[in-house]
Amino acid sequence: VSSFAINKLTIIGLGLMGGSLAKALKAKGLVGEVVATGRRAPSLEKGLQLGVIDSYTLDLAEAVAGADVIVIATPTLIAEQVMADLAPLLTDKMVVTDVASVKGNIRDAAARIFGEVPSNLVLGHPIAGSEQSGVEASMADLFVDHRVILTPLANTSPIALSLIQQMWEASGAEVVCMDVAEHDAVLAATSHLPHVLAYTLVDALAQNGAAADIFRFAAGGFRDFTRIASSDPTMWHDIALANREAILQGIDNFSAHLATVRKAIESGDGDTLLTTFDRAKQARDEHFLGQYLARKKTPPAS
Amino acid sequence: VSSFAINKLTIIGLGLMGGSLAKALKAKGLVGEVVATGRRAPSLEKGLQLGVIDSYTLDLAEAVAGADVIVIATPTLIAEQVMADLAPLLTDKMVVTDVASVKGNIRDAAARIFGEVPSNLVLGHPIAGSEQSGVEASMADLFVDHRVILTPLANTSPIALSLIQQMWEASGAEVVCMDVAEHDAVLAATSHLPHVLAYTLVDALAQNGAAADIFRFAAGGFRDFTRIASSDPTMWHDIALANREAILQGIDNFSAHLATVRKAIESGDGDTLLTTFDRAKQARDEHFLGQYLARKKTPPAS
Repeated sequence: VSSFAINKLTIIGLGLMGGSLAKALKAKGLVGEVVATGRRAPSLEKGLQLGVIDSYTLDLAEAVAGADVIVIATPTLIAEQVMADLAPLLTDKMVVTDVASVKGNIRDAAARIFGEVPSNLVLGHPIAGSEQSGVEASMADLFVDHRVILTPLANTSPIALSLIQQMWEASGAEVVCMDVAEHDAVLAATSHLPHVLAYTLVDALAQNGAAADIFRFAAGGFRDFTRIASSDPTMWHDIALANREAILQGIDNFSAHLATVRKAIESGDGDTLLTTFDRAKQARDEHFLGQYLARKKTPPAS
Repeated sequence: VSSFAINKLTIIGLGLMGGSLAKALKAKGLVGEVVATGRRAPSLEKGLQLGVIDSYTLDLAEAVAGADVIVIATPTLIAEQVMADLAPLLTDKMVVTDVASVKGNIRDAAARIFGEVPSNLVLGHPIAGSEQSGVEASMADLFVDHRVILTPLANTSPIALSLIQQMWEASGAEVVCMDVAEHDAVLAATSHLPHVLAYTLVDALAQNGAAADIFRFAAGGFRDFTRIASSDPTMWHDIALANREAILQGIDNFSAHLATVRKAIESGDGDTLLTTFDRAKQARDEHFLGQYLARKKTPPAS
């Protein structure tokens, strides 16, 4: 039994992530008061109406006064300005965390603003989401069975780290700690690069003269493959710029592999194609075997 | 009320497609006898045990004798040899169709074998499938609410065309007729290119030193994006070679777009990124709006 609880939780930037965290903690009775703040009233008002938060204010100082935990849940590229605004308002009793998909740029921004990254700032990234966004899409179970990566630094307070870890575990997530650079490289490969590829493919097809026909005859495979191209463009614009180096490396690695496959198709090199496709299927099936078997209509032969 | 029925249906190459067609027609009582043939007994024996077919033989002449409809459901690159073997066995009373994902190479092969494409050969492509394969994965409802594209030629018999159209409609599909070249271009864009990209990405990541970590932290978006990389490698090897020109064109078009996006990321050109991502999201949401709304947890505001 954990004695974990948060008296006052402040969410800066109320959208899918912050809203879902608030809902999860409220559903478990682990938070006394949830206050939201941001630059525009409508989404805050909506959050209030939906019961996701208890109150809101456009005044940052008022929002964070007396807070135990402050979650920066704004778009990535706004987080730097938020930290600058927060700097004069923070006390040692407040623990600050964020939910941005890229950690290196936030760490660097915090170092610029504070001189060094504060020991009570715990950078984090819940690996959960949806192609939908906004507080109205928030769900109390968004983080259940998902991973949250925390990227503590050498000077991060163990007490602050433990509090943020408990907060995410209370929301149903599994918490994993990782180095900032490793996080950004892994996420570039598994999330940022696929989003860039999906957006690029759909845009390339949409600009084709036969776009209407192309989409009309698209089957389930195409729908799955392009689902992430329905994600929030502003958020992914931010991520592409925030994790530039790792994403460029991912694009170049992918392009080199694609050039090899292209050459094999052009020259009729069936061996290379079969080897590549087979290796990919094996890798994917191996890593997603649980999900793969769960989806099978017929049970595997015993 | 249609008087459509098939006395004897012969399936050459019993897998997911042929098996599902047989199940669908049997379930509706629209076929007297389903006979399967192929080069190896085990999948035929399995089809018999599962009740998908009524009998099987490894002898092609025996399998097709007296057949009303013959469905060539072998892998793409084997279809040419099957047509060559079929040539001396066909009568004018038999209607032949296929289910291959590429139509130009089958048309060309038929022209080579028969002198000209026979009027009772109706080339077709059911746009349905699964990353699973084999007769044991077959489902009576595989084609329900899916499209089947038929690519009749100038000399195709209207009676033969009508029979194959009715057969697919009876299985629950919507039948659309299209030019061979248009079919191959549209399918390259919506299916063949995405498969090549998905296989290439997964293989590129799997060969990375951090592959285990990469897959471990992959979220739902990645799972959807790479689902088609679990498809049958041999089938997609065949398709990549059979539709070479259209796929190469698709890769080149995609690569040119990717180069533009890469340059925008490198130079910090946020406008180009936002415009591209936004256009892609709009195109996808517009074309898949029905599915998009159906998946929303909260109903759209009235």
